[in-house]
Order: sequence, then C-alpha cells, then structure tokens
Amino acid sequence: MAELKGKILAGKILVKPQEAEEKTQSGIIIPDSAKEKPQQGTVVLVGADKKDEPMEVKVGDVVVYGKYSGTELNIDDEDYLLMSQPDVLYIA
Amino acid sequence: MAELKGKILAGKILVKPQEAEEKTQSGIIIPDSAKEKPQQGTVVLVGADKKDEPMEVKVGDVVVYGKYSGTELNIDDEDYLLMSQPDVLYIA
Amino acid sequence: MAELKGKILAGKILVKPQEAEEKTQSGIIIPDSAKEKPQQGTVVLVGADKKDEPMEVKVGDVVVYGKYSGTELNIDDEDYLLMSQPDVLYIA
Amino acid sequence: MAELKGKILAGKILVKPQEAEEKTQSGIIIPDSAKEKPQQGTVVLVGADKKDEPMEVKVGDVVVYGKYSGTELNIDDEDYLLMSQPDVLYIA
Amino acid sequence: MAELKGKILAGKILVKPQEAEEKTQSGIIIPDSAKEKPQQGTVVLVGADKKDEPMEVKVGDVVVYGKYSGTELNIDDEDYLLMSQPDVLYIA
Amino acid sequence: MAELKGKILAGKILVKPQEAEEKTQSGIIIPDSAKEKPQQGTVVLVGADKKDEPMEVKVGDVVVYGKYSGTELNIDDEDYLLMSQPDVLYIA
Amino acid sequence: MAELKGKILAGKILVKPQEAEEKTQSGIIIPDSAKEKPQQGTVVLVGADKKDEPMEVKVGDVVVYGKYSGTELNIDDEDYLLMSQPDVLYIA
Repeated sequence: MAELKGKILAGKILVKPQEAEEKTQSGIIIPDSAKEKPQQGTVVLVGADKKDEPMEVKVGDVVVYGKYSGTELNIDDEDYLLMSQPDVLYIA
Repeated sequence: MAELKGKILAGKILVKPQEAEEKTQSGIIIPDSAKEKPQQGTVVLVGADKKDEPMEVKVGDVVVYGKYSGTELNIDDEDYLLMSQPDVLYIA
Repeated sequence: MAELKGKILAGKILVKPQEAEEKTQSGIIIPDSAKEKPQQGTVVLVGADKKDEPMEVKVGDVVVYGKYSGTELNIDDEDYLLMSQPDVLYIA
Repeated sequence: MAELKGKILAGKILVKPQEAEEKTQSGIIIPDSAKEKPQQGTVVLVGADKKDEPMEVKVGDVVVYGKYSGTELNIDDEDYLLMSQPDVLYIA
Repeated sequence: MAELKGKILAGKILVKPQEAEEKTQSGIIIPDSAKEKPQQGTVVLVGADKKDEPMEVKVGDVVVYGKYSGTELNIDDEDYLLMSQPDVLYIA
Repeated sequence: MAELKGKILAGKILVKPQEAEEKTQSGIIIPDSAKEKPQQGTVVLVGADKKDEPMEVKVGDVVVYGKYSGTELNIDDEDYLLMSQPDVLYIA
Repeated sequence: MAELKGKILAGKILVKPQEAEEKTQSGIIIPDSAKEKPQQGTVVLVGADKKDEPMEVKVGDVVVYGKYSGTELNIDDEDYLLMSQPDVLYIA
C-alpha cells in the first residue's frame, strides 16, 4: 500500500479496510459473496480539525466502524472508505 | 473482563451490560430467548468532554439505559454497548 | 420512599408520581384500570444546569406534567418518571 | 379568581381565557357546544426570560392567541392555558 | 382607521391590507368571491428587533407579501394581518 | 426599465430576468410556451448584509440562477424575481 | 478552456469535469450513453471562505466527487459543475 499524496477535508478520515481472509485455515478459497464485509481498518489520512470537533483519530490508528459507514473511494487502484470522524465507533 | 486498551470519541461511553442470570434459583437453565435483554451495565470507557456537554459519567459507574440504546460492539470476544451520554437514564 | 443515592444527567429531573387513591371515600377499592394515570408528582432528583437552560425546579417541588411525559424508571422497586425540565407545565 | 402561588418555566405564560357569555342579550342560555372557544385572555403568570428571548408580556396583559395555542391546565378548579410567548399574536 | 394601542412581539409586523375596490369603474358592484385577495398593505405596528434580525420595516411602509402570508386578526372590528418580517417581499 | 424606489430585506436580491427573444433570426414569432424560461438576469436591488452572510452580489451584476429559484414579483408592471443570495449560481 | 471572468459565492467551487475518452484504445468511438459520467475534475473557481468553513480547495486542484454532486452550469459553451466544498471527497 503506497503512501497517499492527496488530502481530505476537515473532519474526515480515509480508512483502508482490512481485507477479509480469502482462504480458510484448511485452505479452501471463499467466494466473494461469502466474505463478511470488513468493518475494521487502518486510518491512512486525517483531515484538519473542525470548529467544535477536534480530530481524535490519527494516521495509523485501527478503527472499528458501522457496516454502512463511509463512501467507497478508489484511489490508484486501491479501495478506501472516506468517512466522518463520528462514524468511528472504537479506536483499537 | 480484561481492561480495554482502546479509546472512544468525545461524548461517548462504552458499557459492559450486566449479564442476565442463566440459571433460575431452582437451577433451571433459561434458554436465550427467555432472558430479558439487560438495560443496566458498568461503564468501562468514557470519551472526552464535548463542547457544551461535559461528561457526567465516569468509568465504573453503573448506568441504566433504554432498551434500544447504543450500538453493539464486540471487542476481544466480549460484547459491549457504545452509547452517547444522553442515552443514560440513571447513574446508580 | 427512601432517599435516592444515584444521580441524573444535566437538564433532567426525576419525579415520584402521586399515587392515585386506591379507595374511594366510601371505601370501595378501585381496580387498576379505573385509576387515572397521575400527572402530578414530587421532584426527587434534579440534574445539573445545562448551558442556556438553568434548572428552575428543585427537589421537593410538586410539578404538573403532560400525560405522556417522561420515561418510566423502576429504582429499588419504586416507580419514577425521568423527564426533561421543559416537560414541566406548572410548579405548584 | 384567586392569586396563583405556583410558577412556570422560562419563556412561558399562563393565561386565564375570557369566558364566553353564557346568556345571550335576550336571556337565552347557550349550550356549551354553541359557545365559541375564547381566544383572548388575561396573563396571570409569566416565566423568566430565556436567552435570546426576553419576556415582552407581563401579568395583567390581555393577549390574543391562536385557536389551538397552549396546553389546558386545571389549577384549583380553574382552567388556564399554558403557552409559549411566541403563541401571543397581539397584546391589547 | 383608528390608531392601535396594543403591541406585538419582536420580529413581527401588523399590516392593514389594502381593500380591493368594491365597484368597477363602470359602477358595477363586484361580489366578494370575485375580488382578488389583496397582497399589499400598510404597516401599522412593528415589534422590537430580534437578535440577529433587526427590523427593516417601519410603521407607514407599504409592503408586498405572499398570498398566504400572515395570520388574520380582527381588532376593534378591523381586519389585520400579523406576519413575521421575512414574509415581506418588497417595501414600496 | 425605470429605477426602483423600494427596498428589499437583508440577504435578498431582486433580479430583472433577461427576456427571451420573441423572434427567431428568420423572423418567425415564437409562441410563449415555446420560449425557454430565462435563467439569467440583472440585479436591480440588493438587501443589507445578514449576520454570517455578507452580500457578495451588487446592483448591475448579471447572475445565473436555477430554473425554479425566486418568487415572481410584479412592480409597476415589470416582472422581477426576488431571491435569496444563495440562489445565485454564477456572477458573470 | 478560456479563463473565467465571473465569480461564485462563498463556500462554493466550480469544477471542469474530466472528459471521458471518446475513443477506446482500439479506436472504436463510444456512443455517449456508454461513457461513464466523469467524477473527477479540475477546480477553476473558488468562492470566499464561509464562517466556520475555510476553503481548503484551490484553483488547479484535481478533485474527486460523488456521482450526483453539484449543479451543471454552461458558461461560454463549456460545461462546469458548481458544488459546495463538502461535496469534495478527495483532493488528488
């Protein structure tokens, strides 16, 4: 995963979702539809503070978020999720 | 219940719901569907103050909350409820 | 009614509703369904002031409130109503 | 109409509606359903100022209000209307 | 039109609508239903300034307003319209 | 187009829409229904600044606006559009 | 693409969408309906800062935005998108 050179707006974070394992431990390949959509990922970009809402998440944090949080964004052939900081449920 | 190393956003609290008794006093095991969903729990994490809303709940407090309050969150195989402070009805 | 040791959030009040008389003056016991839901009660707990909304109700005040105001809360086998201060119509 | 000893919250006024005449000039008694609901009354209690909304109505003012304004409140066997100051259309 | 002795709340204006001509130039009397509802009138009372909304309309101004603006109010047998200042489209 | 002597409220602008050509280049008269509603016009009046929203448009500016923006207003037999400044899409 | 002489309101940006390629690499011309609507473009105009929302995008930035963001605007026969700054998902 190459470093991103772009930036995002205040109050936003860009998350690289954890990829679901594509093989089970016994080595069976799971078809796409059977993989649970990941809800955990690593923060790769953090926007500036907003008035009344300082950023509490930083680059490198592993965050847990809701199943339908964020907007999918493809940058340089990698999939990311752009979300607002309040979409973060837990910072591991 | 191990101590949690993560954190949560401002204005939020993480609650460990009280587990319903799995045996009646006469020793009969109650099936899951018959156990009433607990609405009381212990606060395990507290977020920072929000502007105009200081945190009034602290770690260790036993809180009462509404039946549908909070988002269920599984961390290290334990179930928690993440809720906003105004979801708290009573601090015992 | 024992004193309560818990607390409630800013802007909230906890009210002990007046119990409807269970006997008429002629001594006839009224069944539960025939008792009118009380809409008057005594304030037993008061939360802290909220920004722009100081508490105007104090412990011991008898308050009148709307029929559907507040959330029922059972504490130590007593029924209370937790409500926001603006639910109070009149302080007797 | 005895003086009221209670009080009301900030931004509220308590109004004693003008009673509709129960007899016509020719002395015929009008049944209740034929009396038009009064929309004018005398202010008997005024709450404190709210931030950004000072009270402009004072006790003794005769006010005109909309047909469905306010909440009916019975205090010591007298009927009153509790309303928010913006419900007042005109101060006579 | 006698001068009004009452007052209105901050941010409000009281308008005396222009009466539609009841005769055509050829002297034919127009029935009520055929008269177009007037949407222009003279300001007779102006409330105090509201925070963030100073009054820009003054007594005597002729104002144009939308067809459904304001609340009809009968004071001393004259019909008026009570409206909020933003209901004014144009000050002639 | 005579100069207007009236005024409008803070945050508002009054626009004289550009009239659609009534003849095609070959001289054929277009019926009204076939003329596209103009979405461009000249600002003839500008209201005062609102708190947090200074006026960025001035009298004489040619502005582009959405098809359904503004309220039609006839003043001295001329048609105008009264709109809020945020209805302006582009200042040419 | 000639330079634009107009301006836009505070908080807005004007974007020149990237044109989709009209030929495939093998030289086949793609009909309009088969071209994917571009969601990336170059910022050509930036409005002033709004209170509590400074502009973070500048002229020349390549921005990614949602499929249905912005209002289409034709200026001097060129198509642009006028959008609010929060419509920007990513600044490349």
